Amino acid sequence: MDRSYIPDATLGRLPRYYRFFCDLKEKKVSKISSTQLAEMLGTTPSQVRQDFSALGSFGQQGYGYNVAQMCHDLGQIIGVDNHYRAIIIGTGNLGRSVLSGIQFYNHGFRLIGIFDRKESLIGQVLKGMPIRHIDGLDEFCRENFPQMAILCTPPSEAIRLYDQLISLGVKAFWNFSGGEIPRRPGAVVNDINLNDSLTSLCYKMNIK
Amino acid sequence: MDRSYIPDATLGRLPRYYRFFCDLKEKKVSKISSTQLAEMLGTTPSQVRQDFSALGSFGQQGYGYNVAQMCHDLGQIIGVDNHYRAIIIGTGNLGRSVLSGIQFYNHGFRLIGIFDRKESLIGQVLKGMPIRHIDGLDEFCRENFPQMAILCTPPSEAIRLYDQLISLGVKAFWNFSGGEIPRRPGAVVNDINLNDSLTSLCYKMNIK
Repeated sequence: MDRSYIPDATLGRLPRYYRFFCDLKEKKVSKISSTQLAEMLGTTPSQVRQDFSALGSFGQQGYGYNVAQMCHDLGQIIGVDNHYRAIIIGTGNLGRSVLSGIQFYNHGFRLIGIFDRKESLIGQVLKGMPIRHIDGLDEFCRENFPQMAILCTPPSEAIRLYDQLISLGVKAFWNFSGGEIPRRPGAVVNDINLNDSLTSLCYKMNIK
Repeated sequence: MDRSYIPDATLGRLPRYYRFFCDLKEKKVSKISSTQLAEMLGTTPSQVRQDFSALGSFGQQGYGYNVAQMCHDLGQIIGVDNHYRAIIIGTGNLGRSVLSGIQFYNHGFRLIGIFDRKESLIGQVLKGMPIRHIDGLDEFCRENFPQMAILCTPPSEAIRLYDQLISLGVKAFWNFSGGEIPRRPGAVVNDINLNDSLTSLCYKMNIK
């Protein structure tokens, strides 16, 4: 299908739709109507129908959406079967909460390396693999070709690592550092900025 | 000023603008032009000028923006001086990374309580205060009136806690649980859903 016609707003809702259908599949639900779905999502049936039609998936009149099929189709659009090779840098509380809370494989990634610079942590095993020293990052990348890096370091280190990793062929970044990493052609960045989220929550409380 | 005229897109950028001006202030920068600012932010000078004019802050022709003044003005709009009373529930890796990584006071909040249900953690001191048992949550709320709760528990517990806390007067939620908490009238919710962010990163890589 031609994805250039999917509106940005629909794409923004895609991860949540995918999560809902996977949850429903796990709960052995086989079909769901746009009305039921809209109620669960806190939106309108027409929005649901419009979004899914833009994504190329249509429910059947009087039947609704086939849950397993939708889970599969949305997964295809997202590309969850690619299992992109990912590394994580920084194993403090933040890095560990990402490691323990996220099922990489279900979301399109495969973790292949864990790095830190703290000598005392090197060799410790997390998620079945040893923490490696950051000094071995270049060599590791040249041998294992990671495609995505999760940055759980302080901001200044993340900014430095970003350029280093781009030169080593890493194409995507999940940035938890709170630092602004400059956009580079060809690089994809998703920022998780907790400070900004807290600021926006404060604003929402303030205008109430 | 009448905030009903600030466009949503401008409000979405407000936390980042505020962060930039506070960083500049810390670096002792006294003024900055919309051109310089746009370059730092990766946007256009006209977008910057349009946003700040919507926020009621105008630079001076040939001078630019006064950094300290902007930091103050944006902080007023956000309401950072309110220092809303906040509690956090869940002190696993995720809760600890929020506690260690966030400067609540600078973002409009004041942490007044830390809760967990794991007996072995009760009494342990984090950020200068003891971890309290979740069983004492009702009593604590009736005495200390927290206004915001940070949910760092598993999803099912977060959903249960949400309704309990609303009945105890909590008005805002920072939800890290990954669970969908239903919107209730009068309650403000900011979700941090790491799985959805990872899914969207996968999609962006897949369409490249």
